Amino acid sequence: MTGAGSASTVSARVAHPGWSAGDRAFLEPALYCYHCESCRTGHHNVCPNIRFLSNPGNPGFFRECVNLPQENLIGIPGSLSLDHATMVEPLAVAIHSLTFAELRLGDTAAVLGAGPIGLLTIASLKLAGAGRIWAVEPLAHRRELARSMGATAVIDPAALDPVDLILSDTGQRGVDVVFDCAAKRHTTNWAIRAARNVGRVVLTGIHSEILVPIETSPMRRKEVALFNVRRSNHESEAALEMLVRHTDLFAPMVTHSRPMESIAEAFSMSEHYADGVGKMVVKP
Amino acid sequence: MTGAGSASTVSARVAHPGWSAGDRAFLEPALYCYHCESCRTGHHNVCPNIRFLSNPGNPGFFRECVNLPQENLIGIPGSLSLDHATMVEPLAVAIHSLTFAELRLGDTAAVLGAGPIGLLTIASLKLAGAGRIWAVEPLAHRRELARSMGATAVIDPAALDPVDLILSDTGQRGVDVVFDCAAKRHTTNWAIRAARNVGRVVLTGIHSEILVPIETSPMRRKEVALFNVRRSNHESEAALEMLVRHTDLFAPMVTHSRPMESIAEAFSMSEHYADGVGKMVVKP
Amino acid sequence: MTGAGSASTVSARVAHPGWSAGDRAFLEPALYCYHCESCRTGHHNVCPNIRFLSNPGNPGFFRECVNLPQENLIGIPGSLSLDHATMVEPLAVAIHSLTFAELRLGDTAAVLGAGPIGLLTIASLKLAGAGRIWAVEPLAHRRELARSMGATAVIDPAALDPVDLILSDTGQRGVDVVFDCAAKRHTTNWAIRAARNVGRVVLTGIHSEILVPIETSPMRRKEVALFNVRRSNHESEAALEMLVRHTDLFAPMVTHSRPMESIAEAFSMSEHYADGVGKMVVKP
Amino acid sequence: MTGAGSASTVSARVAHPGWSAGDRAFLEPALYCYHCESCRTGHHNVCPNIRFLSNPGNPGFFRECVNLPQENLIGIPGSLSLDHATMVEPLAVAIHSLTFAELRLGDTAAVLGAGPIGLLTIASLKLAGAGRIWAVEPLAHRRELARSMGATAVIDPAALDPVDLILSDTGQRGVDVVFDCAAKRHTTNWAIRAARNVGRVVLTGIHSEILVPIETSPMRRKEVALFNVRRSNHESEAALEMLVRHTDLFAPMVTHSRPMESIAEAFSMSEHYADGVGKMVVKP
Repeated sequence: MTGAGSASTVSARVAHPGWSAGDRAFLEPALYCYHCESCRTGHHNVCPNIRFLSNPGNPGFFRECVNLPQENLIGIPGSLSLDHATMVEPLAVAIHSLTFAELRLGDTAAVLGAGPIGLLTIASLKLAGAGRIWAVEPLAHRRELARSMGATAVIDPAALDPVDLILSDTGQRGVDVVFDCAAKRHTTNWAIRAARNVGRVVLTGIHSEILVPIETSPMRRKEVALFNVRRSNHESEAALEMLVRHTDLFAPMVTHSRPMESIAEAFSMSEHYADGVGKMVVKP
Repeated sequence: MTGAGSASTVSARVAHPGWSAGDRAFLEPALYCYHCESCRTGHHNVCPNIRFLSNPGNPGFFRECVNLPQENLIGIPGSLSLDHATMVEPLAVAIHSLTFAELRLGDTAAVLGAGPIGLLTIASLKLAGAGRIWAVEPLAHRRELARSMGATAVIDPAALDPVDLILSDTGQRGVDVVFDCAAKRHTTNWAIRAARNVGRVVLTGIHSEILVPIETSPMRRKEVALFNVRRSNHESEAALEMLVRHTDLFAPMVTHSRPMESIAEAFSMSEHYADGVGKMVVKP
Repeated sequence: MTGAGSASTVSARVAHPGWSAGDRAFLEPALYCYHCESCRTGHHNVCPNIRFLSNPGNPGFFRECVNLPQENLIGIPGSLSLDHATMVEPLAVAIHSLTFAELRLGDTAAVLGAGPIGLLTIASLKLAGAGRIWAVEPLAHRRELARSMGATAVIDPAALDPVDLILSDTGQRGVDVVFDCAAKRHTTNWAIRAARNVGRVVLTGIHSEILVPIETSPMRRKEVALFNVRRSNHESEAALEMLVRHTDLFAPMVTHSRPMESIAEAFSMSEHYADGVGKMVVKP
Repeated sequence: MTGAGSASTVSARVAHPGWSAGDRAFLEPALYCYHCESCRTGHHNVCPNIRFLSNPGNPGFFRECVNLPQENLIGIPGSLSLDHATMVEPLAVAIHSLTFAELRLGDTAAVLGAGPIGLLTIASLKLAGAGRIWAVEPLAHRRELARSMGATAVIDPAALDPVDLILSDTGQRGVDVVFDCAAKRHTTNWAIRAARNVGRVVLTGIHSEILVPIETSPMRRKEVALFNVRRSNHESEAALEMLVRHTDLFAPMVTHSRPMESIAEAFSMSEHYADGVGKMVVKP
C-alpha cells in the first residue's frame, strides 16, 4: 500500500482487514481520545489528549513504516494521483476554516497570503459559491496561482494598500469575510479593517510572535467577530472528494517535487519561496 | 413627563399621541436610518448613518428639553423608580453582550471588571441560568457588589492570579465564556487564557489603546472565538422588563445620586471610583 | 451504593475505583458507541448503535443489580435527596429541548402540557431567564404546579382557546418559542399558531399516531422552524447541578412515592393522572 | 426602461434619479414597512405590513405601467438577457431556502420536485459546493433538466422508491439536507425519511392541503429539523449576480416564451407541464 500525507509520500505494510498491499491511502496524522469533553462535543481537533504524528515527541511520516489505526486511513481513488493527494491535509484545513465563515451564496471574501493554505482557501471559497474574492500576496507567482485558483482580484501589498483597495472596490462596505492565512506583522489588522459591519475574520495562519498588536477599535465599531482555526476536524474525506471532483482547479498548485534524498533542499525551497514554488511534494 | 436616560434624569414636554405630561420614559439615545444594509439585516447598532445623542456633535441628555422620535421613548411602569430606570441603558448593553455567549443552562462564566457594565453582566448571567460565575475586580466594594448581584466567586487580581485560580477551580478546563468588561492592560489575554476549548470571549469594554497586544496562540490552540460588542441593539425593552421583575437584584448597584448642580462632582466620583460608588444617578 | 434513575431508585454493588459502597449516583441509561458520525459530531443521543437500558431487549433499572460503565454514573451530592435526584433524567430532557430554543433574556414562551417533562421545561425556562411563560394544561392540579414552577399564566384548553389567548395576550405577536410537551391531537398545530414570526416550535412530546396532521401554511407564512427532541445529550450533570442549586423550585413536582412492591399501582396512577400526581417515585 | 419580473416583462416610464428611459431592471414585487419587529430583525419577508404586488388586492406586473419605489429596482447588466433575468425572482427563493441548510462543502442533498424552483435549488446547491445531489421528479424532461443543472443522480418516483434509493446510495446514512420543492402527497415525509441523523428538511414548496399528514417519529428519532421558506429576503441582487456569472448553467431552464397576447396559453402550458416546459417567459 502507498499512502499520501502532508508534504510526504509514505509506503507501509498493513494488516487492516479491507486493505491490501498496494492500496493507496491518505494518512490522517491526528489520534484523538474520543471521550474528553472536546471529543464528545465534536471538536476532536482541540482534544487535549491528542497525539499528532510529526509533532515533537511523535514520529512523523518521512519514514518507511508508519503504524496507524484503521480510521486514520482514507483510501485514495485510482483517478487521483499521489501528488495531488498530498493536498488532502492542507485542503482539509481550508475547508475547516470555511466553517467559521457562515458563507452565503455570493458573499465576498478576501484572503491574505497565497501560500498553500491561502490558495486552497481561495479555491474552497470559489467552490462554496463566494462572489468576488480578493487575494493579497506580495509574491508575483503566487498572485498568478491565486488568480488561476479562483481569486477575482489580486493585490500586491508592496505596491498598493490592500485595505484601501478592498474598501474602494466595495464602495467602502468591506467584504463579508476575511481569511488571514499570512499572520504577518499587519495582516490581522488589515483583515479587521477590510471586513464589513458584523463581518467575520478567520485567523487561519499562525503568528510567530507571542503578542500580536490588534486594533480592537474597528472590531468593536463594526462588531466584527474573530475566529481561530486549529488544523482541521474530520474534513479530510470532504477534501479528498473535492480533489477528485475538481482536480483541474487544484492541479496548478503542485508545482514541484523532489525525491526523499533531497528532502532538505525541498524544505529549503519551500521556506524561501524559491523558484515559484506552490506546493512541494517529497517522493519516496 | 419625566424621563430616565443613562446617568441622567430628564424632563421634557412632548407632543406624541399616547403620551401625557408627567409620563415617565426611558430615552433611547440612538437614531437609526432603518434602510442601510446593517439596519436591513437587524444590526441597527452598527448603522453607519447612526446619530447617537451625547456623542460629539450631537446634544446629550443633561438639559431641560430633548427632541426625540416616538420610537425612542419607552414608558417606565409606575412600580420602577427613576433611579432604577437609569440602569436600562447599561443593562441593555449587558443583555446585548450575552447574545454572543450562546449560553446554555449551567454554563460557567467569568466577568473581568465589576464596574456598572460588569455588574449588570453578572446579574444578567445569573438571570440567564449560568452556573458558577467568577468576578475579577481590584476594588473591594465592587467585589462585594459583584457577589450580591450573582457572582459565585470573586477574585482580587492584585492578590491572586485570576487565570490560575479560574483554571484551578475548573480542573484546568476553563469557563465556557469570559466577558472582558474592563479592557485594561492584561484583561483580554486573561479572558483568552481562562476560556475553555472552543470557548467564547466577549469584549464588552473599550480599550483606550489603539493597538492591544493579544496572545493569539492560546486562541488558536483552543479555537476560542472573540466577539466585540457595540452598545446594544433594541434590548432596552427587555432591560426595562428585567429591572421591573428583579428590582431587588439590581437595586444595590445604584449607590449614589447627586443633583444636577453637582454634576461635575458626580462625574469625578465615578471616574475615581470614590466612596464605593456603583452607579451614580444625576437628578434634575 | 444507592442510585437514582428515572422513576426508580436502584441499589447496586460496584467495583469502580473512586466509588465506595453506599455512594449514591444517578444512572445514565444510554450506552453510546463514541465512534459513529453522530457521536463524532457531538450528537450521541441519536447514535444508531445506542443501547438504552429499559428499552425492549435491554434490561431496565427496577432490579437489584445493574451493570454499567463508570461514565454512566454521576455522583449525587449529599444535599440532594434520592427522591429529588429522580428528576435528573427528565430534567436533562427539558434542558436538552431548550438548546433548540435559542432563548434570549426576556423571551416569551408557551409550554403545552404540564406533565413531568412540561413542568421541568417551565422551570428550566424560568431559570434560563425567559420572560412571560404560558402553560396550557387541562388538569387543574398540574396547572397549579405549573404556576408554582414558573408559569406566569396558565390556560385550561377545555375552557378557553389557548391560541387565541396567547395571541391576545401578546398583541397578536405570538411567543418566541413554543414547546409541545403534550403531543396530543391538536397541540402541535396550537404550537405553530402561537409562535411569532420566525419563531420556534420544539416538539418534545411523542405523538402516538404515525401520521400527525400538521398545518404547514402558518409555518410557511411565519417561517417558523420545527425542532424535534430525542431524549437528552450529556445534559445530566447540568440537570443535577440545577436540582442541587434550586431544589425548592423543583421540589413541588415530586408529589408521590410508592414502594417497589406497589410498582404496578405507581405506574397506573401516573398513567391515569390520579390523585394530583406530579412525579411518582418508586422506592426499593 | 424595460424591466424583468417573475414570468413577466414590463416596460415603464420612471422618474427616479439615476435611471434613464430604456434602462432595464428587475422589479422586486414586495414592499416592506421597515419598522415592525420582523423588519427590524432582518426578516422583511415575513413583515406583517408587507404589500406584495401580484397578490389579491394588489396590482401585478402584467401591465404597461408599474409604480414602484426606487429600492425595488435592481439594474440588469447588459450582458444578461431579459429572458434570463426573469429567473431572478425564483432564484432568490432558492438562494433564500439555502440559508436554512447550513451547507458545508461537500454536503449531500436531495431535491424533491424539479419544477422551476426545484431546478434553481439544484443549481444553487451545485454552486454552493454541495457534493452529491439527488433530484426526484416524475417528469422525464425535468429530470433531464435537473441533471444538466447539477443533479448527480435523478430518480423517477413512479418507477423507484426515492427514499430507499437515497438511503441505499448513502449506505443508509441519508443526506445532509433535503429540499421539498414539490409539497405533494408524500414528499415531505420522503424528505424526513431521506435526511440523515440531525439532518435538515427545508420545505420550499407550498402544500395545497390545510392539514398535511407528517411522520413525526423519524423526525424525532433523528432529531431532524424542519424549516419553512417564505419567498425570499433581499436575495435578488445575489440572484442577479449568479445569473450573470453562471448564465450557461441556468440558461437551459428557460425553454419557452410567449407574447403577452398568448398569456393564457402560457399559463396553461406551465400548469400542465406541457411540451417539456421549464421556465416560461411572457414577453410584451
